[in-house]
Order: sequence, then C-alpha cells, then structure tokens
Amino acid sequence: MAAADISSPHHVVVVGAGFGGLETVHRLSGAPVRITIIDRRNHHLFQPLLYQVATASLATSEIAWPIRHLLRRRREITTLLASAAGVDTQARAVRLDDGSTVAYDTLVLATGARHAYFGHDDWEPFAPGLKTLEDATTIRRRILVAFEKAERETDPARRAALLTFVIIGAGPTGVELAGTIAELARVTLPEDFRNIDTRRTRVVLIEGGPRVLAAFSDDLSDYALRALEKLGVEVERGSPVTECSADGVLYGGKRLAAATIIWAAGVQASPAAEWLAAAADRAGRVKVEPDLTVPGHPEIFVIGDTAAIDAPDGKPVPGIAPAAKQQGRYVADTIRARLAGRPTGIPFRYRHQGSLATIGKRLAVIDFGRVKLRGALAWWIWGLAHIYFLIGVRNRLSVALSWLWIHTRDQRSSRLITQGSASAAPDRPAAR
Amino acid sequence: MAAADISSPHHVVVVGAGFGGLETVHRLSGAPVRITIIDRRNHHLFQPLLYQVATASLATSEIAWPIRHLLRRRREITTLLASAAGVDTQARAVRLDDGSTVAYDTLVLATGARHAYFGHDDWEPFAPGLKTLEDATTIRRRILVAFEKAERETDPARRAALLTFVIIGAGPTGVELAGTIAELARVTLPEDFRNIDTRRTRVVLIEGGPRVLAAFSDDLSDYALRALEKLGVEVERGSPVTECSADGVLYGGKRLAAATIIWAAGVQASPAAEWLAAAADRAGRVKVEPDLTVPGHPEIFVIGDTAAIDAPDGKPVPGIAPAAKQQGRYVADTIRARLAGRPTGIPFRYRHQGSLATIGKRLAVIDFGRVKLRGALAWWIWGLAHIYFLIGVRNRLSVALSWLWIHTRDQRSSRLITQGSASAAPDRPAAR
Repeated sequence: MAAADISSPHHVVVVGAGFGGLETVHRLSGAPVRITIIDRRNHHLFQPLLYQVATASLATSEIAWPIRHLLRRRREITTLLASAAGVDTQARAVRLDDGSTVAYDTLVLATGARHAYFGHDDWEPFAPGLKTLEDATTIRRRILVAFEKAERETDPARRAALLTFVIIGAGPTGVELAGTIAELARVTLPEDFRNIDTRRTRVVLIEGGPRVLAAFSDDLSDYALRALEKLGVEVERGSPVTECSADGVLYGGKRLAAATIIWAAGVQASPAAEWLAAAADRAGRVKVEPDLTVPGHPEIFVIGDTAAIDAPDGKPVPGIAPAAKQQGRYVADTIRARLAGRPTGIPFRYRHQGSLATIGKRLAVIDFGRVKLRGALAWWIWGLAHIYFLIGVRNRLSVALSWLWIHTRDQRSSRLITQGSASAAPDRPAAR
Repeated sequence: MAAADISSPHHVVVVGAGFGGLETVHRLSGAPVRITIIDRRNHHLFQPLLYQVATASLATSEIAWPIRHLLRRRREITTLLASAAGVDTQARAVRLDDGSTVAYDTLVLATGARHAYFGHDDWEPFAPGLKTLEDATTIRRRILVAFEKAERETDPARRAALLTFVIIGAGPTGVELAGTIAELARVTLPEDFRNIDTRRTRVVLIEGGPRVLAAFSDDLSDYALRALEKLGVEVERGSPVTECSADGVLYGGKRLAAATIIWAAGVQASPAAEWLAAAADRAGRVKVEPDLTVPGHPEIFVIGDTAAIDAPDGKPVPGIAPAAKQQGRYVADTIRARLAGRPTGIPFRYRHQGSLATIGKRLAVIDFGRVKLRGALAWWIWGLAHIYFLIGVRNRLSVALSWLWIHTRDQRSSRLITQGSASAAPDRPAAR
C-alpha cells in the first residue's frame, strides 16, 4: 500500500479532511510523525457557505480545495483518495473499500455526518439534504428547474406547486436557504420570466420546535423570525413534518403542495461507531472519553460531527466548524505530548465562540453570549469572517467578487442547471 | 403553450442558444417581431474555453450564462427550457419533447453539433468528447481520478496506463487539451503526490491526418508540433485510431495502454435535417440555399454547426463561433428586410477572420491569412480576445483572475472531482 516510509517512527492516520481532520494535520506540523490523510473526496469543503452554492450565489470551486494541494508542502503527509470501510482495532489498521489496509499507530476519525431523516429514509428522493457539493448542485438544479417548469406550466394548481419551496428545519442552514431562495425569487429572477411572476413564489420554512435558530437567544431568534417574514418567508413552527412525497409535505395535519422540498432538519454521524463497535448516541456519534479517545482505545481519537461529548455547560458540543477545529488542535497537542513523554490528561474543553447565521443578503444574527448583534453590521462581520476563513487569496478575491455582484446588481453568477435538465431526454443531441 | 402574445404580427422561433442563435436574437433587437428562443440547456456556453474547464483551469460558471438572464431586458422574447423533438413544416410548428408545439412564422434552427465517432458509437464510454459542461466535468473527473488511482496503484504496468493520456484528433481542441494536460502533469501536480512522479506522465496526441492544426498554414502547424513536443506531448500523425477500449487504443497497428482517452476528432450535426426531411452532408448538416434557408422552405433558416454551405473560396464554412455569428447576423438582416418589404437575395458570404489555437499556457498560433503570429504575443492576443468575447464584466474579471493564478502560481482553481469518485461507493456516508 501507499504511505510506506517506515523510517519515521509514529504513523498518524487521519480519516476525513473536513475542518477537524485538516486542523489535526495542520497542528501536527513539525511533530516527529508521518501522516496519512484519507478522504473519499479529493477536496476539502467549506460547508458553512454550501447553501450559497445551492442557491446559485457561489460556484463549486469557490468553496472547495484539493486536499493534496493544500498539503503539498508537507512532505511527511500522504493523501489518499479512498473510502474507509472499517477499522481493525486489533491489527491497528484502517480497511479501505478496495480491501487494502493502512496500518496506524494513532488513528483520528473525523468522518463527519450526513443529513438524516429520523427513520424516514424514503423521504430523501423528495427532500434532498445539503452536505456535499453534489447535494448543492442537485438542490440548485431543482430550484432553477422548478421556475423553468412553472414558466411552461399552464395548469394553475401545478404552477402554484412548482412555485412553492419548502425548507424543513429552521437551524442556520434552513434559515439561510429560506432567506436566499426568497430573495432569488423576489429580486434576482422577476425580470427573467414572461409567464410567471416569481415574486409570488411561496417559501415555507417548517420547524418542528417552537423557535427558529433554537441555538440562539430568544431575542435574536425573534429578530430572525421577523426578518424572514419581511423577506416573504412563511415560517411554520411547532409543526413536525409527517410526510414528504413528490406532491409536497404533510405537517401539523396540513397538506402543502410543493415541487421542491429541502431537508435541513437532522444529521446522522458517519458509521465510525460501527467500525469501532463503540457506544454511540442516538445520532450515531461515538461517545468519547474526556480526552476524545474511544473507551479502551487510547490510540483512537474521534472528533467533529462524529463524536459525542458535552461542553462545560453540560450541553452537547455542537456540530460546527469551530468545535471540530478545537478538537483537532486538542488531539494534535495530545499526540505531541505523548510522543514527547509529557503528561497528558487535561480533558478537552469546548469554548463556544459564538453562533452566526445570515438571513438573506443583508442581515445576520450573531450570538457571542454576552454580546449579541443583529442586522446589517452583523452581516458585515459574518461576511468578513467567512472570507477570512476561506483558504487562499484567490478564493477570497473570487468570493468577494461574487458577493459584490450579488449586492450591487442582484446577479447570481452560478445559475447553472447541469447533470440533467427539465426535459425528459437530457443527453440527446437535440437543441443545445 | 407559452409565448402567446398574438398581437405582434410575426413570430420568430429560434431553436438553440449557441453563438448562432443568440446572435440572431441580438440582431433582431427593435425589429417588429416577437421571438421565442428554445434551448434544452438553461445556459449559453462559451465553447472555445470549454477545454479549460475540462483541465481544471476554469470553473463551469465562468463560461456559462443563464439564457433568460441574458435576454431579460427584451420583453418581446420568451425563453423556453425545452428539447425540440421535430418540426411540422406543414403546420409551421416546432414539436417539443413533452408533445406540445410552438407555432412559428419564421424558424431559425441553430441546434449545433455533437462529437461523433465515425460509426463507432461504442467508443463513447471510453473516449468521451467535449461539447457540454457535463462533458467537461466528466473529463476533468477522469483526468484527476487517473492521477489519484496511480498514486494508490502498486502494479507498475497499471500505474503506467493510469499515467498515460490519449487525445484523439489534433484540431484546436485536441492540441489545447494535450498541451494543458501536459502542463498540469509537469507543472501543477508534481509537488502534490508522494508515490508517483507526475512529470513522467505520457500525453499522446493521435491524429489520423498528416498534420496537427490542419486548418492552419504549414509553418504554423510545424510550429505547433514543435511546441507540443517541447511541452512533452508525443504527437502521432498519419495513424488513425482503429479501436478504443477500457484498456487503451489501437492506432496504426500499435497498441497503447491508457486509462484516459479523450475524443476530439469528429462532430455530427444535430438531427435538424431529419426533422426537416432535408438533404444533408455526411456529417448530418442540412445543405442550405445560398441564403441559408432550407430548399423549398424560405421560412426556415438553418445556421451554425448544423448547416452545410461553402465559403467563397470553395471550402466548407468551418464550425466555429465567428461563422455561426455571421450567419445569425445575416439571417436577422434577411428577416428584417422581408418584413420591411426590402429586396433580399444577396447570398450569405462567409468572411474568415482567422484561426486561433493555444498550446499550453504561454504559446499560441494565429492565422489571419496574410498575417501569421505565433508564440507569446499570439497567446496574449488570444487571451485578450477571449476575455473580450466573454459576456459581462463579472466573468471577465473572474477568468482574468483564474488565469493570473495559473500563470503566476501554477495553481488551477477548479481541481474538483465531483459526481462520483475513485471509490466504488461514492454515495456512502463514509469518510467525507
């Protein structure tokens, strides 16, 4: 197999090049280890902006970077494009999908999560979720095709269903999607169509709980609710969805005809717990020790969205990028300390730096705990923070350029329908 | 059906929003007509730069624009996302794939061409061609996955096949692909891999005829050949390919093991001739009258890659953007003259403005007829011309930015493998 430099004493294998995995690798720079990082994607994805790809605001390449290119200067790192299929904890090896194995001395599982349907996996074809670039281009295609079909549709009821967009789940992703789709319909698209008035599009955000942005304070949540309604989003709270189909949704006993449904309600961790035969919580996350190791396996760390651990305040550590990064740093420091023979044992301590969410293209809410911001200033802080966290000058410039165009001209640069079309025979060489 | 404003007297239906179709529509601005433009894609594609998407240099959204957005200010135009399935010349109506029809007074068929395999359609799975955005992302994925698989491969023969790229056809597209892949392997990628030396990649350009860039003068063709060889491309001339398979190609009696084959050798026109039951040439192009109408149907024009007509020098009008645009302008002017009762009858006259092709990222050849340019100056003219012909300030800035990064830092911004991966189970929620 690859990664065969036996001369280096300690081999760290990191599975998953999301925020947690990459941070582990960055923080191990200069440590006396060789590293193999395994991901089934060739790119690191900046998930916080994925909803902007789904809503035609950004291009896929603006928020994704080839992993091996990011790590090219680190000669001690081998990058493998491969799917992990399991872990042999006895032999200390990761099994890949092609049957080969990669032996480790220390293993870091940072394999993330996927959207989940609470036992209703049959809903997925009708209500795609948003975790990968393909998810984002699928949702983008569905949104844009719905408007195209509405333009051709003569039946009023079917046209109304085509112009109804349902987003299930009012966390940050759901709120961001709802606000952006409402703006797309009301600001970007009206001039482009002849037979439909896209401003009459219905965007319905359905939340099972009592509040939007439940992780935020009450007043910010109320503010977000009012801001969404001002954008024309209909917010339905306290009404769990009980059915998703090609026709629409059933929620709180009400039926709503909608051609486009997007799932932003729940996640399920990667099968890392199964690989390890370890105890997991309801979302499939491995219940880790206070030092993020797996019980009985101090050589295996689990971090990020696939680890279950509580913060000092007793609440679970949230599945967000800053949490994964803090865990990645902690793990790297622990590995370094072990190799140096320094004492370890200080438990991981999550520090919540704040919660951010945008509502459309000019407003945001930021909950720093004691300091709370909302409105246009919060949006600017959100925007600058996200540009800062992007990797590389080129992508920062490119995203800034895209946002400038959206804000000054209401033009969204990535309104592309690809991989199939509204027509029945997308691959025929008919009219291109 | 849509497009139902009966008050306007003359209805022009344009099928295909490529260079020819869009130019027709632009040139009809202010004419006393209503227009319906039908395309099975939602975007106009700048095909001359498609090879740069296939080689990870540009993002899909940098060379494609939503058609209805381009035409939003023209209230007399209706844009339909639909596949044309036929033409009822008696009833004067275009049949769409959903069975509905769009009646026309004047019809302009600008439905383009698709790559063709000279009777070997079974080669397509092994040797994809390059005509659509999906083609480009497919080729990009195959190129990038080949390097990824080579990095994991331990068998020397299989590794060599993975690092062998065959391009069939040495027209501008073939030359541009070969040069760019060679640079990708030799300049962009070497630092990123640990187990393979990407500089030892073989890029083999196979041409059935005696020359590369046959449309150019002998000396420019020779220059291109030498420039390609300097980039490390192996050019095989006078050896038609007789077999393509998953293992590689057979050409001139020689077998070459290659995991990646790209088809840049031939095109087949859209089925417009079949729709019209009109005489066609071998490539399926409608043999049009000197005024670009279909024999017996003065109300139907066929233009661009799907029309066969000779230039004043007796050679066929080439299937390139400037030719399609000239024809679009001619057709619009003819329609205007007819509606104004002015005499028509001056035949279409193609003016060849020149041929351009790039070889890698710093060299190009330009054949203006009397003036011939080659080398770095030609590249600058090529680059500026292409940025000029892009639509919109935003895309010009974005492409300029991408090229700046490629030239100064050898970073290609769109090295994304999407829609599947090297692994067997791309949609499993394993390591992301």
